[in-house]
Amino acid sequence: MDNQEAIDVQYSQLLDILTADNLTEFREVFFELHIYEQGQFYLTLTEEERQRLYTYLSPKEMADMFDVIEEDEEDVDIYIKEMKPKYVADMLAEMYTDNAVDTLNQLDEKEVPKYLSLMDKESAREIKHLLHYEDETAGAIMTTEYVGIGAEQTVKEAMANLKEEAKTAETIYYTFVVDQDNTLVGVMSLRDLIINDDDAIIGEIMSERVIAVKVGDDQKDVARMMKDYDFLAMPVTDYDEHLVGIITVDDIIDVMEEEATSDYSGLAGVDVEEAADENPFKAASKRLPWLITLLFLGMATATLIGRYENLVSEASILAVFISLITGTAGNAGTQSLAVAVRRIAVKDDKDSGFFSLIMSEILTGLVTGLVTGVTIFLVVGIWQHNFPLGFVIGMAMLFAITVANLAGSLIPMVMDKLGFDPAVASGPFITTLSDLTSVLIYFNIASLFMEYFI
Amino acid sequence: MDNQEAIDVQYSQLLDILTADNLTEFREVFFELHIYEQGQFYLTLTEEERQRLYTYLSPKEMADMFDVIEEDEEDVDIYIKEMKPKYVADMLAEMYTDNAVDTLNQLDEKEVPKYLSLMDKESAREIKHLLHYEDETAGAIMTTEYVGIGAEQTVKEAMANLKEEAKTAETIYYTFVVDQDNTLVGVMSLRDLIINDDDAIIGEIMSERVIAVKVGDDQKDVARMMKDYDFLAMPVTDYDEHLVGIITVDDIIDVMEEEATSDYSGLAGVDVEEAADENPFKAASKRLPWLITLLFLGMATATLIGRYENLVSEASILAVFISLITGTAGNAGTQSLAVAVRRIAVKDDKDSGFFSLIMSEILTGLVTGLVTGVTIFLVVGIWQHNFPLGFVIGMAMLFAITVANLAGSLIPMVMDKLGFDPAVASGPFITTLSDLTSVLIYFNIASLFMEYFI
Repeated sequence: MDNQEAIDVQYSQLLDILTADNLTEFREVFFELHIYEQGQFYLTLTEEERQRLYTYLSPKEMADMFDVIEEDEEDVDIYIKEMKPKYVADMLAEMYTDNAVDTLNQLDEKEVPKYLSLMDKESAREIKHLLHYEDETAGAIMTTEYVGIGAEQTVKEAMANLKEEAKTAETIYYTFVVDQDNTLVGVMSLRDLIINDDDAIIGEIMSERVIAVKVGDDQKDVARMMKDYDFLAMPVTDYDEHLVGIITVDDIIDVMEEEATSDYSGLAGVDVEEAADENPFKAASKRLPWLITLLFLGMATATLIGRYENLVSEASILAVFISLITGTAGNAGTQSLAVAVRRIAVKDDKDSGFFSLIMSEILTGLVTGLVTGVTIFLVVGIWQHNFPLGFVIGMAMLFAITVANLAGSLIPMVMDKLGFDPAVASGPFITTLSDLTSVLIYFNIASLFMEYFI
Repeated sequence: MDNQEAIDVQYSQLLDILTADNLTEFREVFFELHIYEQGQFYLTLTEEERQRLYTYLSPKEMADMFDVIEEDEEDVDIYIKEMKPKYVADMLAEMYTDNAVDTLNQLDEKEVPKYLSLMDKESAREIKHLLHYEDETAGAIMTTEYVGIGAEQTVKEAMANLKEEAKTAETIYYTFVVDQDNTLVGVMSLRDLIINDDDAIIGEIMSERVIAVKVGDDQKDVARMMKDYDFLAMPVTDYDEHLVGIITVDDIIDVMEEEATSDYSGLAGVDVEEAADENPFKAASKRLPWLITLLFLGMATATLIGRYENLVSEASILAVFISLITGTAGNAGTQSLAVAVRRIAVKDDKDSGFFSLIMSEILTGLVTGLVTGVTIFLVVGIWQHNFPLGFVIGMAMLFAITVANLAGSLIPMVMDKLGFDPAVASGPFITTLSDLTSVLIYFNIASLFMEYFI
């Protein structure tokens, strides 16, 4: 972490220069920083310090920084609100279109037209266009700053073209070949351009087998394809094969992180994007909705146990094993849920039928249930010198685990089929639900064999 | 999925050509496929069909395909074992060094020298060098196929250099500037090379502020840096600042996926990398170790409840709420665990002290516990017409949740400090542990207030 310490020292020197109001020296030191570090420095400032910064940096310089900040920060709206509207408009116009759109999406919808009206027409038109795409689709994450070339151009012409566009394009490492109609007909990597002779014709050397996605495709599927094919940029077409934008690998990394975090949050039943310095009341307010909902679902289990209170007062030993059975079944259900959600995420189930997957999960449940059931039968039988009781606990364990496994896989799969995000079927939800079925199974088996174990 | 169907048709046509033993036609159709699709086709073949393929493709062609297959497949050793050793050696020599090393790491250690001895000396030396680095460090995932240039070169010379190396380098989009001593002194992106004039001197236009990692750095930290800085390639140096390799963005995407999967698996207490067609017995054998371990931990809870059996037989109503209290505390503990593991993963805690984080988690626990406790106090009081009982349940809930929150954050943080992976403190482990403390808290509070609620 020497690196981090060195950077921290630089930040504090830079802050001193800013406070001393030394514009020239500030700009000199500031632009020695990597663009990411500029952003990190900006995020440490107070509003007063930021206001001074806005007078030091041009909208274009601010835009470069915001292209980076926007990716990780959730609350960029506070920064936008404190800037002059014209400054914001100029900055947004200079940002990559996809990032400008993401930034605008964080503002109140009513604020957006104000900034668009202050912007040059061309930028406003491009941004408006992207604002239309549905969230989490290829259209919503693509940028329109790509390099398009013609199939009839030579390598030399294409390179000149590229050099021209290198200042504004988000990536120049792939160029996309289009015809007069803007239909995507091929792709050339910069590597291919460099390897080939200057006078080679693009149409003859380009790869015609273009892998592209449609504007409406889910961002998860786009991410998976880019990962599989190891692309640095993926072209996006409309439904008539016209090239409308590209998605770059840095956006895909953010999508992957977002999706992984959402699956993970789902499994735990909490939004894990809680900052370390979150105030405990705010943190609690994020966690309580799930906890209270599950509390009421848990009340159903308590009510059910209440119906067997006579059984418990007759044989209080039964109470001893309630939490063991509900806990173990809950653990099995969580495992099964995690496997199912993951399988849905990687679309690993495309070749297998719905029912064969469910059957396989029931079988897995029966095998785990059988092994666990026999284990607990032996343990309880020996420990309590009561094999009939062990038999009841073991049988309950077998069925409770099988049902929990079934619920853990069936619920996310059905949600996926119905078009919901399977990850909202959280781990706590499955365990609380499996508590209910486990108790039902346990007390019914217990009352059947009551006379043998008391 | 029309795209997928079209590809499936192509695969089956290709298989027909392979079966008909038509080498020329096969190679024609095969090389129209994207390299990723070639790999996918290969993975669908039987051993007999693969044996024929080995006679159709050169080691170099096989190497290109293996560079892709190796990233996603876990069992490439079976393919290696069925190939002739000399073919394997030639293939490995042609692969990117990092991928060749990953492939060798999947084989039995005793097999490795055999292949290295059949290889050209230069390739064997490079592979041996990388084999030394510890797993999951920058050294283990880096490749040695980078483009190095001198600070005294002109842009034109550097471009000629690049053109030369474009065929073998893993990326040409970044070039790394080194002095005679191979010390890393600067970096130039291909974009910068293209924008600048042909006769500009590299040393004058390069970025001297190089962000590099050390060979021993953890791959997680490297991934985070590359994501933050939006790099396509990151240079790796030894501890004396000599450039030894680079890490490319596709490797980082794999690292991120690996880390996300391992956090997710940890939370669920199961290895989620279970194939959809996994045999139920194999799936069960992966899940059972955790389940049985937790079963024995759960037995401790059962034993504890057993010590309070007299209490339960006196007031069987107590049994009704066992699963509600253990379940809710378990849910709270899981939330707290997920937040803590995530925070450790993104190193969000670097600025806050260990104790202030723990204090904040205890406070969050107290707030959630208080709200949940008051809720259940009212519900039980009204439902059972028994406010003293409601008070006992509510108090137990408050303390059980606070303790579960503390355990959920403390355990992963302590594991991290001790150098273990915090994700091995799984969700099921935390819930099973919190069952124990919840029961202890519940029955102690209950026995204190016994006389008031019976």
